[in-house]
Amino acid sequence: MDFITIIDYIGTFAFAISGIRLASAKRFDWFGACVVGFVTAVGGGTMRDLMLGYRPFWMSNIDYLLVTSFALLFVVCLRRFVVRLNNTFFIFDAIGLGLFTVVGVEKSIECGQPMWVGIIMGMMTGAAGGMFRDIFINEVPLIFRKDIYAIACIIGGFIYYLCRYVGIAPVPTQFIAAMTVIVTRVLSVHYGISLPALNGELEDARSRKTSVKER
Amino acid sequence: MDFITIIDYIGTFAFAISGIRLASAKRFDWFGACVVGFVTAVGGGTMRDLMLGYRPFWMSNIDYLLVTSFALLFVVCLRRFVVRLNNTFFIFDAIGLGLFTVVGVEKSIECGQPMWVGIIMGMMTGAAGGMFRDIFINEVPLIFRKDIYAIACIIGGFIYYLCRYVGIAPVPTQFIAAMTVIVTRVLSVHYGISLPALNGELEDARSRKTSVKER
Amino acid sequence: MDFITIIDYIGTFAFAISGIRLASAKRFDWFGACVVGFVTAVGGGTMRDLMLGYRPFWMSNIDYLLVTSFALLFVVCLRRFVVRLNNTFFIFDAIGLGLFTVVGVEKSIECGQPMWVGIIMGMMTGAAGGMFRDIFINEVPLIFRKDIYAIACIIGGFIYYLCRYVGIAPVPTQFIAAMTVIVTRVLSVHYGISLPALNGELEDARSRKTSVKER
Repeated sequence: MDFITIIDYIGTFAFAISGIRLASAKRFDWFGACVVGFVTAVGGGTMRDLMLGYRPFWMSNIDYLLVTSFALLFVVCLRRFVVRLNNTFFIFDAIGLGLFTVVGVEKSIECGQPMWVGIIMGMMTGAAGGMFRDIFINEVPLIFRKDIYAIACIIGGFIYYLCRYVGIAPVPTQFIAAMTVIVTRVLSVHYGISLPALNGELEDARSRKTSVKER
Repeated sequence: MDFITIIDYIGTFAFAISGIRLASAKRFDWFGACVVGFVTAVGGGTMRDLMLGYRPFWMSNIDYLLVTSFALLFVVCLRRFVVRLNNTFFIFDAIGLGLFTVVGVEKSIECGQPMWVGIIMGMMTGAAGGMFRDIFINEVPLIFRKDIYAIACIIGGFIYYLCRYVGIAPVPTQFIAAMTVIVTRVLSVHYGISLPALNGELEDARSRKTSVKER
Repeated sequence: MDFITIIDYIGTFAFAISGIRLASAKRFDWFGACVVGFVTAVGGGTMRDLMLGYRPFWMSNIDYLLVTSFALLFVVCLRRFVVRLNNTFFIFDAIGLGLFTVVGVEKSIECGQPMWVGIIMGMMTGAAGGMFRDIFINEVPLIFRKDIYAIACIIGGFIYYLCRYVGIAPVPTQFIAAMTVIVTRVLSVHYGISLPALNGELEDARSRKTSVKER
């Protein structure tokens, strides 16, 4: 088991934990929590694979399912411990985000896609799982409203192509791009940086009554 | 029209009815109800086919669309009758669940997938349609919180592989696996058995205010 | 840049604007608004392409992404202007709906699908983007409850095949089918025509308490 594989499993574990915790907050049963955890962990990569024309990556390796099951067990058994580990999970999640982005970019390059598709696929691999998670638990996707999350993937994707362009070797390129995602993510949360929200005055005709009053 | 086809249509009909009824409870129009009914009936198989790399099965046979349209007509015309038939629909739904699971498992085997993928695909074929239905009507998916539903598919999938392993012929294998799903489903509802819910104390930082108070 | 391309971009622009405005009403950030706008514009075609076995169309042409980004810029900079342009956007949206339907039907014919699949694909290309938009912003999809929208695509699809059947040349066929969609859409909104809603009395056992009271 090489270094990349270990990081892959750590990221999968952290993503699954995030899904399982939100599912448990909604009182899902064990099965529901496991599905939500699994979808959070592999949903982004699955969508990427379907769009690029591959079979979903997790179908050729049972480990992702096992890591998710282990995450469920972990949450069930070590309940109070999990809450105290918030910061650890946040770091694991950021590491996963960095790795998944790089994996997504590389898979796009592998099948001959242009740079902008690679960046979208990197972002999708990293961030779409969390979006599916929020749809499943019937919430507005967090990544659309809070923090720098998907944007970190986009920046990391750009850096990946930049490194390639200036001729840096593959392994350092992967490392630099993943670190960019991780650092962007960690710093933005640490300093409370987020994108500006769009102004709510734009709502369409159905909800215009309030704006009329405001005049 | 052989026996399997008839059961397939009965299952499709029951699944479509369930989608149309929930859509009507949300005041969807006829078109919306028809779409939700169709997605409930074929959504699971469609997802399975996309993941396995097939074209969605319903595109090569108009019957699934016709059965859904007939279900819509049935609900519209025989409104009061439908409510009284609750138990019949429950049985039809369970029969559909059993058949769809077997179809999903067999399609996975056909394209060389390992056992654990086959079980997931069987479960997806049976249970994902109801999940899409609940996302469309903007509810938290029922299968994540209530009853033994997807779990029945998983058990049926295991039994399918077990029967194959011990050398039982294909047709009895199908029958035994489908019956396992049906019986598991019916008994679990009859005796009110469900999976334990996960404890809600795990919610993440955003919703921690309440837990702080509780201390 | 030919005529069809221009109309394609106008439709994409109008669809993206509709997504961005609804996202802004939900206080999404810029990134979220851009994603919702993009999904509204290309989501229907993406689903069609995945089902027909193609790679999503927008991956081979960056223009759809650029048009969406431009739509975001437009909404951000010309806020008040956008609200006053409601009617213009409505017309653009209807034009897009007409064109997208024709594109969807033709792509299905191109890969040998029967008429009824072509009509479904035309409808999906036109109307599924708006459905994804509503799922992302966590609302019940509008197309299931309001106005004639997807139905206009279905009628346009029928007209397309009718024109082909009676031997009308390709270009007039496209024009007539698209105009059918546009006119159906505009007239139905102008005269407030909508499909009947299904009666809400059909709700299943979980919500039966009220109906028991009513007796």
